[in-house]
Amino acid sequence: MFPHDAVLQAISPAEAIDRVRDGFVEYAAGAWQMPPKTYLDAAPNGDFRAMPAKGAGLAILKWVTSFPRNPEAGLPVVMGMICVSSASDGEPLALIDVRSVTALRTGAVAAVASQELAREDARTVGIVGCGLHGAWAARCLAAVEYGPGVCFDPNPEAAGRLAGELGWEAGGREDALGCDIVTCVTPGVSPVVQDADLRPGLHLNMLGADGPGKAEATPSAVAGCELFCDEWEQASHGGELTGAVEAGLVSREQVRELGDVLTGAAPGRSSPDAITLFDSTGLAIQDLALCVALLEAHQAGRVRAETARL
Amino acid sequence: MFPHDAVLQAISPAEAIDRVRDGFVEYAAGAWQMPPKTYLDAAPNGDFRAMPAKGAGLAILKWVTSFPRNPEAGLPVVMGMICVSSASDGEPLALIDVRSVTALRTGAVAAVASQELAREDARTVGIVGCGLHGAWAARCLAAVEYGPGVCFDPNPEAAGRLAGELGWEAGGREDALGCDIVTCVTPGVSPVVQDADLRPGLHLNMLGADGPGKAEATPSAVAGCELFCDEWEQASHGGELTGAVEAGLVSREQVRELGDVLTGAAPGRSSPDAITLFDSTGLAIQDLALCVALLEAHQAGRVRAETARL
Repeated sequence: MFPHDAVLQAISPAEAIDRVRDGFVEYAAGAWQMPPKTYLDAAPNGDFRAMPAKGAGLAILKWVTSFPRNPEAGLPVVMGMICVSSASDGEPLALIDVRSVTALRTGAVAAVASQELAREDARTVGIVGCGLHGAWAARCLAAVEYGPGVCFDPNPEAAGRLAGELGWEAGGREDALGCDIVTCVTPGVSPVVQDADLRPGLHLNMLGADGPGKAEATPSAVAGCELFCDEWEQASHGGELTGAVEAGLVSREQVRELGDVLTGAAPGRSSPDAITLFDSTGLAIQDLALCVALLEAHQAGRVRAETARL
Repeated sequence: MFPHDAVLQAISPAEAIDRVRDGFVEYAAGAWQMPPKTYLDAAPNGDFRAMPAKGAGLAILKWVTSFPRNPEAGLPVVMGMICVSSASDGEPLALIDVRSVTALRTGAVAAVASQELAREDARTVGIVGCGLHGAWAARCLAAVEYGPGVCFDPNPEAAGRLAGELGWEAGGREDALGCDIVTCVTPGVSPVVQDADLRPGLHLNMLGADGPGKAEATPSAVAGCELFCDEWEQASHGGELTGAVEAGLVSREQVRELGDVLTGAAPGRSSPDAITLFDSTGLAIQDLALCVALLEAHQAGRVRAETARL
């Protein structure tokens, strides 16, 4: 039983990035399995997602919420557990609080996608949305030597705190969108990226839209980019790509999956002047990658766990 | 955090039967929700199932295995956890070991189906398969005044132990199949009910076939019965009905769901001489019904729980 702070004690951003990259490669190569995630609606307040995956001898199930208005009551938006079992006999091995795993693996994929898809000479980072997941995206991008960056948030205190932590600057939306690598981590309620924000050479990480009806860019802006996603099924039905797909502006063959780019099965950015957009909807293989790291850290005595009787 | 024995301390078979019946009624009435279960294959040894449900203010996710050869290594076939969260804000409320919940809710549905579908004057019980789940089916049937019964198992010791506990008899397959209510709880590897076993007035509970390729009756024997199931989608794709459906012997309109019979939306047995068959594949609403009972028992101080820090 790992409390939520154990994950951050055990796994650095740099290790999380390596582990998440490996997870995408294993999944693209067919070594890891991941059935589609299941949504359980809990209207009007939120929803639950059940996310299974299998690989590296483990089978995990993540049970995770999104209750966007929870902070008004002092509760996190994202709560839940990851059950980790042995894939060879089904025995329960560990329970992990979802909060830190989710934040760290979400941040890590922004770094993986940027390393793979941004221009070779990309350096500056714009963060649009400086909540928990925006902060971890920034930390992961900084961990692989991107920066300095500009942090924008409707709440100037959140932007200032994150900028201060990393030695970056707080700024406006346009300042953030003027950087080489723009990472959006908003609730996805209204688009923050328009056609006019697209510039040659830009790379966009879109992390906020993770369910039906959410979007951080207009469908037309999405259609103006070279498109990449974590997984087509999720991205086209409940991600940043959904609006553009439903409008008929984008079809399957225009979108490449990150794992295929990592294994060389699909090409990355076509030229330094291309505009690339990576749609992250969040995959259970990312969580699995960090569960593998956490259990290895526990075996090596680098992190403590509490024992529970079943 | 409830260890596996807490469930049996808190919930009697009689209460489990009432709770499971209520769960079917709530689901049939649309008050409870249940997305389809997801299978995660872990060949060659077994599989995992992710089973969400929502109702009575709770959202649960059951993460449960079936590893049929585990007993050779001294491990249970069925292992895992149920995560229980608040449906209004997503907060994790409890973790429950699956073993006792699964056994008790599986046994309870046999009693509910028998009360609803067997002849009014049915009394004797045949148990085919006296493992963990067969034993709980027998206990639940006994709890609602069915019996005496005949217990059959290829392992005579298992049959004798269960018969002794309930004051019933151990006997052969034919003896068990000669009873009024026959409950099959085998691994579903080969059929134990053939055409020749069908007699007017018989009621069959088929609990063993809970996944693709499993069956306890021949397709022709299934087609010779008035058919009922817990849920059509599961029963037709991974249950006792699957073989008969795939052979074209049974179609959707011939099969009624237990919840609809309980609410009066569908008729039960057509006459005392009809042969009825209930296909139980196992639903998350049954688990949810017992989670509700367990949390109520905990609030009333009738069962202890361990606290875990997240």
